[in-house]
Amino acid sequence: MSAALQAKDLLIRAVSCDQSGRILEAQTLYQNGIAMLMTFVTDEPDEVKRKGFLTRIKEYMDRADAIKARVNGKLSLGEVVTHISIEEDDVGYDYEQIFGKYMDSKTVEIMLEEPYLAQNYQFQNLIRFLELAVTNCPNFKYIRLITKEDTKNLDQQKTNIGQIKADLERRKIAFFIKYEETLHDRKIYLSNGYIIKIGRGLHFYKASNPMYSIGLNNYRYRKCLQTDVDIWRTSGHAN
Amino acid sequence: MSAALQAKDLLIRAVSCDQSGRILEAQTLYQNGIAMLMTFVTDEPDEVKRKGFLTRIKEYMDRADAIKARVNGKLSLGEVVTHISIEEDDVGYDYEQIFGKYMDSKTVEIMLEEPYLAQNYQFQNLIRFLELAVTNCPNFKYIRLITKEDTKNLDQQKTNIGQIKADLERRKIAFFIKYEETLHDRKIYLSNGYIIKIGRGLHFYKASNPMYSIGLNNYRYRKCLQTDVDIWRTSGHAN
Repeated sequence: MSAALQAKDLLIRAVSCDQSGRILEAQTLYQNGIAMLMTFVTDEPDEVKRKGFLTRIKEYMDRADAIKARVNGKLSLGEVVTHISIEEDDVGYDYEQIFGKYMDSKTVEIMLEEPYLAQNYQFQNLIRFLELAVTNCPNFKYIRLITKEDTKNLDQQKTNIGQIKADLERRKIAFFIKYEETLHDRKIYLSNGYIIKIGRGLHFYKASNPMYSIGLNNYRYRKCLQTDVDIWRTSGHAN
Repeated sequence: MSAALQAKDLLIRAVSCDQSGRILEAQTLYQNGIAMLMTFVTDEPDEVKRKGFLTRIKEYMDRADAIKARVNGKLSLGEVVTHISIEEDDVGYDYEQIFGKYMDSKTVEIMLEEPYLAQNYQFQNLIRFLELAVTNCPNFKYIRLITKEDTKNLDQQKTNIGQIKADLERRKIAFFIKYEETLHDRKIYLSNGYIIKIGRGLHFYKASNPMYSIGLNNYRYRKCLQTDVDIWRTSGHAN
């Protein structure tokens, strides 16, 4: 596909996502489509054509801005639905048990803010979360993952994330990664209107000790680290 | 505890298990108790006392023989309840899905014949099986595992099995291991009267590929190797 067609394709898909309420994916597609159109502006020698491009870019930027306002609105916290205090060495908390019931057929898009994705167990936790999403959310179509770059093993991190992206795309789930160096807070935003905030994010399990013991695979038997879980309904939640 | 008291304790527990229908555990306890009494016979200089020991040993041996007949009776296959053919690369088969419903509150004892326990993934499968048993069988009290010695890494195998035994004993589940060099068939006997025969035993999953992909933790998404599953009701099954 030529770059021009690719840009067109991205923007058509952006508009379609926008119209069907998939605003996170629309936002990503607008951004990528606009960035691609930008390259034509700089490369285009013809003054008239360049103006044409700029007009269209301006148009899509306005749409992207409108989307941004909607995303921010969706992300603003409404009321707390549940609070769970997990104490040090508690057992009985796998992701399904804590927030599985909030992941449902109305969850089409997910935004996961998880600063730490470097160690094996952290990637394993990410897969565990995604397996739950795939299992509980039959209409799951898009995930945006925001994390920090692992400056010590950047290549390995990119390889792992690349594999996860390819795996999800085989299941028709778009995966978009954004690196943010200053990220600290952990948050899981679900497009059905719930936000899950866990103090330690996905990583609140102790290692299986000894390794071959009950709890190696089934995290309902794993000991936990102390952390707090707050589940919010967003203020934009319709019901 | 002195050796004499230990032998007494084992045999008292054997009789108690025998009476409550826990015949696999009773069999193990009789065997261990008898073996311990045997040491007294050889060490005992007093002719009369030695005869006393021998009489008691004979008594317990008769009981153990009776148990053996009952165990063999329980293990004889009755009728096939279900047959599943898993094809190469099939997905959708975790242990819960295949035989979880046969593991219930009436499952007090389990005998697992699984010749291969050497690689990490094989121990991981064993733990996965035990987690299911602990989850589904609230009255699970005893497991006998029959396997081959891993002659290449005997120390590691014994260490892993020792950890699993200790872990189960913390949950009040007695664990007994028996090594049989000629073992080939795989079989899971449940004391509620079901026998699960899987051609490849517990090890019919392909590796997660790439590693970080859906199916790493949740085996319902794992690709399988070709194997057949037959679930039998034992001929000694009441119901």
